[in-house]
Amino acid sequence: MSKTKRTDVNALGEFGLIKHLTDNHPLRNKSSQYGIGDDAAVIDNGNMQTVVSTDMLVEGIHFDMSYTPLKHLGYKAVVVNLSDIYAMNARPQQITVSIALSNRYSVEALEQLYQGIYAACDFYKVDLVGGDTTSSPKGLVISVTAIGQAAKDKIVYRNGAKVGDLICITGNLGAAYLGLQLLEREKQVYLSDKNMKPDLTERKYLVERILKPEARFDVIQGFANAGVVPTSMIDISDGLASELFHICTQSKVGAFLEESGVSIHPEAQEQAIDFKMDPITCALSGGEDYELLFTINPKDVDKIKFLPDIYIAGEILEESEGIQLHTTGGNMHPIKAQGWNHFNA
Amino acid sequence: MSKTKRTDVNALGEFGLIKHLTDNHPLRNKSSQYGIGDDAAVIDNGNMQTVVSTDMLVEGIHFDMSYTPLKHLGYKAVVVNLSDIYAMNARPQQITVSIALSNRYSVEALEQLYQGIYAACDFYKVDLVGGDTTSSPKGLVISVTAIGQAAKDKIVYRNGAKVGDLICITGNLGAAYLGLQLLEREKQVYLSDKNMKPDLTERKYLVERILKPEARFDVIQGFANAGVVPTSMIDISDGLASELFHICTQSKVGAFLEESGVSIHPEAQEQAIDFKMDPITCALSGGEDYELLFTINPKDVDKIKFLPDIYIAGEILEESEGIQLHTTGGNMHPIKAQGWNHFNA
Repeated sequence: MSKTKRTDVNALGEFGLIKHLTDNHPLRNKSSQYGIGDDAAVIDNGNMQTVVSTDMLVEGIHFDMSYTPLKHLGYKAVVVNLSDIYAMNARPQQITVSIALSNRYSVEALEQLYQGIYAACDFYKVDLVGGDTTSSPKGLVISVTAIGQAAKDKIVYRNGAKVGDLICITGNLGAAYLGLQLLEREKQVYLSDKNMKPDLTERKYLVERILKPEARFDVIQGFANAGVVPTSMIDISDGLASELFHICTQSKVGAFLEESGVSIHPEAQEQAIDFKMDPITCALSGGEDYELLFTINPKDVDKIKFLPDIYIAGEILEESEGIQLHTTGGNMHPIKAQGWNHFNA
Repeated sequence: MSKTKRTDVNALGEFGLIKHLTDNHPLRNKSSQYGIGDDAAVIDNGNMQTVVSTDMLVEGIHFDMSYTPLKHLGYKAVVVNLSDIYAMNARPQQITVSIALSNRYSVEALEQLYQGIYAACDFYKVDLVGGDTTSSPKGLVISVTAIGQAAKDKIVYRNGAKVGDLICITGNLGAAYLGLQLLEREKQVYLSDKNMKPDLTERKYLVERILKPEARFDVIQGFANAGVVPTSMIDISDGLASELFHICTQSKVGAFLEESGVSIHPEAQEQAIDFKMDPITCALSGGEDYELLFTINPKDVDKIKFLPDIYIAGEILEESEGIQLHTTGGNMHPIKAQGWNHFNA
């Protein structure tokens, strides 16, 4: 290893780092339809294409065992990967799960984790087909790979948004981020006074959003039933601003987002105010909601306007117009990509 | 989590643990051809089948940064997964790589790791199509998933060995294990006296076997050219004894192994004697050689006997006869499965 230069991994950020490491390596196999850069890779098998996505969850970075039940963790580890497959407009069919864990974890702990993994498999109708279980010197690492299928003409990439397309968002945003802030606050309270017992019953929705998120297979099913294929799509794992940036950058377009089109749950509204935060900032920059951001051709608007839980929130503009937020107060603000940066965690 | 019972993960061993956690979950999707229990899972896509394998390498468990160059580590992380795909008689086409690393690692260190990853991609003609890069509180974790293809009638499982089949081994065994012991010894010498500089030039082969193993794509190519399909196959990652046990258990057969049929490299012979170890024990119980163990129908023996680097080393027996080693001294010994147990590491 070169001793002369040392660049901190934080310097590039996660996306910059991946780009830096993987640029200039063209795909060589005919079956490698699409590589790095979308929610999932696409492998050609003839009529149907195979879609593959992988994610790693690390104790102390992505989850805190002091408030994360293992069953929920197993469930979530699967769901975040399935969300990537749905974001390609594909159906997940199989997963593999690799786990490294220290001897602090017992077989019973692993059983809880697998109960959650299988609960997600049951709910989303996927098969656990492989994996690796090994020890780690410290903590728990879970790596999940999800494999799905879709017809070639149904797969939706990030790079297909066109000027004039409508920007749509499923569900509500910011709740998972506020749930996490709440759990972190209650943890600190508990650490300073072990007799304090957190009461989160009034914030059940926020806590569930962070600990046991769901992926929007119902929306993908809705697209199929309505006979509509979005022009671009991404799942909202790093916050709306960051995901909209990915779509605009890869599609070479700008965008206009209407604050009033971004749905925020009443509990999230209240909690944001309690934390003296702006709710729209939580929606734009908070992560882990696992909703979908997609664009559709305006001619398809009648097909999706009666689908539940979909909000039209903006329009795709020329690239030169940048990415802007139109606030409820009537102001225009440029939106900056501000996703979660785990390297700064 | 239940507080009443705590079973240490060591109690079940890796294979027992996986079985315990994944039993009683039948596959539900038509495309899930084969799940947990072989070198790789098999997914049906019509004529061709997709084969998926995943492995996780953890710093302090699977590798020691004090003597593992990062480029070699990246190369090896890919190769051990490709080896699983070849062991299904399939061709790897794509890989995904997920990495968790502490801020002890610089961008330049990651570059070295990816140089190794891409060197393996180039040599084995596979595409890196996805992954995840995140931080870890401590150390480096690499999780690789390999995806391959094969025609349905060419895929070789562990469960197809029949009484009378010949047992074959590629290459030589035990060298990787002895290479690892050597590196560990030199590390201890260096730690006790920093002026000592290890000279491993006379043991270059052993060191290369552990740090930069290769997968036997040449053998798979040889099978295709010779028009032969083994009846069962497994890659030798945990030691010959453990792998032969997997084949016998899953095929419900016994086996007879001839010590003289197990090839051991001269450097490994010398090093074993230097360590006062029995070379055949290193071959039977040492891991990480990534050679192939397979069985063939005796009618195919003419097709493979001129293929380079394949050794006929025994025969499949009735299950009731157990698994036995015929030593060069003329004795018979029952063989016990004694693979690497990372939970005891």
